[in-house]
Amino acid sequence: MTKADIKLYELVLENGRSSSPFVWRVRYALAHKGLPFELVPLGFVDIPKTFNGACKTVPVLTYGEVTLTDSWDIAEHLDAAFPGTPALFSNPAEIAMVRLFDAWFAPTVMRPLFGIYALDIHDSARPEDRPYFRQSREARFKGKTLEQITANRVSQVPVIREALAPLRAHLARFPYLGGTAPNYADYIALSGFLWVASVSTLPLLDKADDVMRAWLDRNLDLHGGIGHDARMKPLFD
Amino acid sequence: MTKADIKLYELVLENGRSSSPFVWRVRYALAHKGLPFELVPLGFVDIPKTFNGACKTVPVLTYGEVTLTDSWDIAEHLDAAFPGTPALFSNPAEIAMVRLFDAWFAPTVMRPLFGIYALDIHDSARPEDRPYFRQSREARFKGKTLEQITANRVSQVPVIREALAPLRAHLARFPYLGGTAPNYADYIALSGFLWVASVSTLPLLDKADDVMRAWLDRNLDLHGGIGHDARMKPLFD
Repeated sequence: MTKADIKLYELVLENGRSSSPFVWRVRYALAHKGLPFELVPLGFVDIPKTFNGACKTVPVLTYGEVTLTDSWDIAEHLDAAFPGTPALFSNPAEIAMVRLFDAWFAPTVMRPLFGIYALDIHDSARPEDRPYFRQSREARFKGKTLEQITANRVSQVPVIREALAPLRAHLARFPYLGGTAPNYADYIALSGFLWVASVSTLPLLDKADDVMRAWLDRNLDLHGGIGHDARMKPLFD
Repeated sequence: MTKADIKLYELVLENGRSSSPFVWRVRYALAHKGLPFELVPLGFVDIPKTFNGACKTVPVLTYGEVTLTDSWDIAEHLDAAFPGTPALFSNPAEIAMVRLFDAWFAPTVMRPLFGIYALDIHDSARPEDRPYFRQSREARFKGKTLEQITANRVSQVPVIREALAPLRAHLARFPYLGGTAPNYADYIALSGFLWVASVSTLPLLDKADDVMRAWLDRNLDLHGGIGHDARMKPLFD
């Protein structure tokens, strides 16, 4: 098998946009490494059917006999499997430090974002995916409806904006989270914003937030502008 | 001049303990690199006198003609100035990622810790340092007294414990913040706890917090146990 055999199964919405932040991470990882791949678009209910129930979420990345189902596993695997390509991680210390960033970003930014955009995701999904999405996500919130989960979402926007303060402080010093060049920490954060931008009916960022806007612009220009198809307009009020 | 000329000016309390978290970072940086150095203990009011007003805070590190006054400047300088010693940072990406960690840790953990321990610091300082400490710190809080700053401190302890959740999540995967080996992120966090341990009259951590305790034990054993002289008992209830 060759690099060209790589297939990345992604999650798409009714309008065809790629939505999953964890798929976006892998798209950027593959682009960073210059690896060609085929994108396979799936809706929520297609995923278990496609993998005979073995996988319920994407990303799923396959090539040859290999099937990988976790974005971190995929990222680390790609460096090991394709050593002739640009490294995602320069060494184990960088992996650990990006993991530490993710350990902060996940509960502090990603989880609260779901409380703002859960209903937007539902409404943006293909009609045939909506009942499954509602049922599975409401079950995770002990039966709270998507409407209840997002009831106070307007008040949560300033909380997220404030939670991004460490990124702004860092970006006053460096153009990228990774320093002078983007690294997987940038892809993690960017993927969260691409997720929001794919579904948002409520602007997340203040239009005066020049630091985050400049960083987003820099990152959206990377790798041939693969993130631009998500359009960033709904991110800013 | 030689490595042996390195002097590190530190802040000491009435009982002689080293207290400044930024000095602790440098002590660990020097130990990591195996660089011998002379510690020069100063109280708060000694610092401007010693440096003719040019420096009001420590760390101050000097060797030969070089004087450095910021813990990050010192850390980066040591790698450049002593290339034959173990690197603190493997490459610029690691520097950026540790800076990103610090950009989160400073406002989320270090700043709130001052709101808990400001009066303990005052009471632990040498008697001749206390009026200066009170006056200078109260001025930073727009005239609020140290007693007012710390009035609700008991309720802030659970906030700090919760704020450490990303560290616990990370330490479920790795023995150190830096991964399989300690890096400057470990020294940054450890230095915060050594600061608390040098002055605390209120336990910061839950005695059942096995993850943080194991990490602290691992770090206190590093480099000949240089942190042990701060004794960790007051950290746990």
